[in-house]
Amino acid sequence: MAESKHAESGTAGADPALAAILGRIDAGLPAARGRLFEFLRIPSISADPAYRAECRRAAEFARALLEEMGFAAALAETAGQPAVIAHHPGPGPGPAAPRVLFYGHYDVQPADPVALWSGPPFEPRLVEGPRGPRIVARGAVDDKGQVMGFLEACRATLAQGEGLPVALTVLLEGEEECGSPSLEALLAERREELAADFALISDTNLWRADIPALTTRLRGLVYLQIDLDGPSRDLHSGLFGGAVVNPLQALTRILGALHDAAGRVAIPGFYDGVREISAEEAAIWRGLPFSESAFLAEIGLAAPAPGEAGRSTLERLWARPTAEINGIWGGYTGAGAKTVIPASAHAKLSFRLVPDQDPEAVIAGLEAFVAARLPPGARVHWQRFGASPGIAVATDRPWLAATRRVLAEEFGREAVLIGSGGSIPVVEALRRHLGLETLLMGFGLDDDRIHSPDEKFEQACFHHAMRAHARLLHALGQGPAGGQR
Amino acid sequence: MAESKHAESGTAGADPALAAILGRIDAGLPAARGRLFEFLRIPSISADPAYRAECRRAAEFARALLEEMGFAAALAETAGQPAVIAHHPGPGPGPAAPRVLFYGHYDVQPADPVALWSGPPFEPRLVEGPRGPRIVARGAVDDKGQVMGFLEACRATLAQGEGLPVALTVLLEGEEECGSPSLEALLAERREELAADFALISDTNLWRADIPALTTRLRGLVYLQIDLDGPSRDLHSGLFGGAVVNPLQALTRILGALHDAAGRVAIPGFYDGVREISAEEAAIWRGLPFSESAFLAEIGLAAPAPGEAGRSTLERLWARPTAEINGIWGGYTGAGAKTVIPASAHAKLSFRLVPDQDPEAVIAGLEAFVAARLPPGARVHWQRFGASPGIAVATDRPWLAATRRVLAEEFGREAVLIGSGGSIPVVEALRRHLGLETLLMGFGLDDDRIHSPDEKFEQACFHHAMRAHARLLHALGQGPAGGQR
Repeated sequence: MAESKHAESGTAGADPALAAILGRIDAGLPAARGRLFEFLRIPSISADPAYRAECRRAAEFARALLEEMGFAAALAETAGQPAVIAHHPGPGPGPAAPRVLFYGHYDVQPADPVALWSGPPFEPRLVEGPRGPRIVARGAVDDKGQVMGFLEACRATLAQGEGLPVALTVLLEGEEECGSPSLEALLAERREELAADFALISDTNLWRADIPALTTRLRGLVYLQIDLDGPSRDLHSGLFGGAVVNPLQALTRILGALHDAAGRVAIPGFYDGVREISAEEAAIWRGLPFSESAFLAEIGLAAPAPGEAGRSTLERLWARPTAEINGIWGGYTGAGAKTVIPASAHAKLSFRLVPDQDPEAVIAGLEAFVAARLPPGARVHWQRFGASPGIAVATDRPWLAATRRVLAEEFGREAVLIGSGGSIPVVEALRRHLGLETLLMGFGLDDDRIHSPDEKFEQACFHHAMRAHARLLHALGQGPAGGQR
Repeated sequence: MAESKHAESGTAGADPALAAILGRIDAGLPAARGRLFEFLRIPSISADPAYRAECRRAAEFARALLEEMGFAAALAETAGQPAVIAHHPGPGPGPAAPRVLFYGHYDVQPADPVALWSGPPFEPRLVEGPRGPRIVARGAVDDKGQVMGFLEACRATLAQGEGLPVALTVLLEGEEECGSPSLEALLAERREELAADFALISDTNLWRADIPALTTRLRGLVYLQIDLDGPSRDLHSGLFGGAVVNPLQALTRILGALHDAAGRVAIPGFYDGVREISAEEAAIWRGLPFSESAFLAEIGLAAPAPGEAGRSTLERLWARPTAEINGIWGGYTGAGAKTVIPASAHAKLSFRLVPDQDPEAVIAGLEAFVAARLPPGARVHWQRFGASPGIAVATDRPWLAATRRVLAEEFGREAVLIGSGGSIPVVEALRRHLGLETLLMGFGLDDDRIHSPDEKFEQACFHHAMRAHARLLHALGQGPAGGQR
């Protein structure tokens, strides 16, 4: 059982106050799981207007929970689902405690297709699996289980009777699963109320069930649509072909040149500012148990993409920028043959950016690249759908060092510092509106089936989440470096 | 008035028999127009099943007309609308007369949008226009008016009482406007019955109202769909981008390389066999009144396509092969942004071919070209929608020389030998099934609005059509060279 492992490996050497808190968590696991089950029973599906009242009920549930624990908690109304904002003052007078903003979300994905679940999606249950019992329900790990992992750590800490070691603000959003349409306005309005030294999010994964991970890199995203116009109307390809510009041909010629023969993006200046990864990161990534062939086999591929020579798959995913075509259309796309030269051609283009590329410079470079290749008679129009920079957390941040240490203590092995090739909009929004760096410490697993039927959270992971967060709160209370020796 | 012009310029010097026939045509114009109006009143829309009976009525009308003129005429049933096949034995014993197969079609396009017509589409009327009276109705020129131009020439010739100077078979199809689905089977079944020395079609245009034209070149057509597959499912472009093959990128890279920097098709061997145009053709095309800038302005372009240097627009359209992308699709094509790397990408490709390119060699070259550029992890599948060669009528054919002479006599100026960049499927079918070359002598104008509201046929053009066909029949009866001196 997971509990005994933790009791043996994780608590040894902890100071008595922390040992008591961890003991409280271990003993209270069934009660904590019960509270999580209550939360999971509320079908807070934000994407479906039919569940609007359930979203508010979930927000109220979280608010009451926080209030019961001693937080000053209130709903923050938005144009959509309400958010929950709760404050705890921390240890009070004395050396300034770090201020932490914890972000999570109480809304969940729709449960469709319900028929593929092994039981009702909003009736959480404990199911025995290969790694011990698992909690199965919509939202089990994304993100109710992970949020409760943090809140239960607060509860156990507060139960000790000495308050919280950090000044804590909890922000729980109710629209994350439908694109956070109200979040930016909320952050802008509540800028001062949400001020902190850093943000903490628990919505990511462990590297493996026994290997903790911190995500310290996220790629930025520039997303554009290009519309290329040629003749004023669709033309017969026999009567005009060879004498007039074909927008499909012009567009494929331009987009086909976006990469050079070595797989590098060919836009002039595209790599300006791109930071090489540190020797430490390179060493960590090289040491990660990662099978390129298994990664590819899972998506039906036998060979990696042509790409920049000498870069590993993980480096390409986490630390190298990309240019991708996400969609393309134009002309006749039905069954059979139609001999048309269409008046226009279209594509969706996106660029994943890394620190310190400038999104605006990338867009300007792209537009110049296209303009230089536009044949006579073709014109382009651009539509823009976002431009955010890549994010990297400097590895010398004191709270990052503290987090690595507590994860090592909890798991008995070093946390790996990993990247994510994706872009997490809330991290970028917290950076932009509140000036915060974000610590991404999560306890999910790749096989947790988030957004799919039978979503689950390993009970051992839930348990780790509570204990690791309790350790982190304790460590942060030891001073700016989290008690690092 | 058109009639007096013809009477003056066209009949001078004709032999007495021909002069009598032409006089009969001039005098009979109102009656001929009346018969055409009867034909036009039948809404023989082949594409719409609701008009099935009307199609048969039009076929019966034509059959009766031919029978009344002395042809052995019958309906030829098909899987769709019936065809009309009629035979006239020609002059009987004596030096073998040429055998001619006249092809036309009695079906018409739908009249939609009817509201944009200036009157009911199937109530033909004579409307005064800038070139004199015009016949306005659906089918006026495409193809009922042009068919009647030929049949009225036969009528006037037969009225002379000496039979026809050629052995004539008339084939009128009822499904041309919906892709001739039954034609190939009909030609294959009736191969012997339809045997002839050459085919004659009147379904093309004059170069200008006062400049006759013969279309002696048609481009062939190879049409393919390429389906390019990569990963086994759609992927998140953040979590996978940079490390896996993107089918859209692979496809645009390949298609973007189809042409070299000079606009030439880059497929190895593509130009094998391509015939340069003769000095005579080049001179004729140079001499055509053709404004490149007007041609481009009409379709909203100010500059010609990048293309083969040193080739005129007409040469590019009529005598040079092309590679065109007719459609492309893949990935996300809706509003806004979706960060997907799709599992597959698709395009429709067509190639206009000229004599003597081999369609099969072009397809093999394309497949090899694509295979050589396919990145690891990508696979292609091909779908084929036709492969026909380019067609050129040798300018030394005796019936072609005769036709040029009679057009010169009728219009008072030389006919221009032109090409068409398009592919006329029936010409290719006649070549393949019956081994026939086709003479394309038509009397439409570019502004006749075929397939559009207020389709019209200039009465002067109808009159020219009758007279020119009568001259041609007469000339062909003078011997294999049509009486050429």
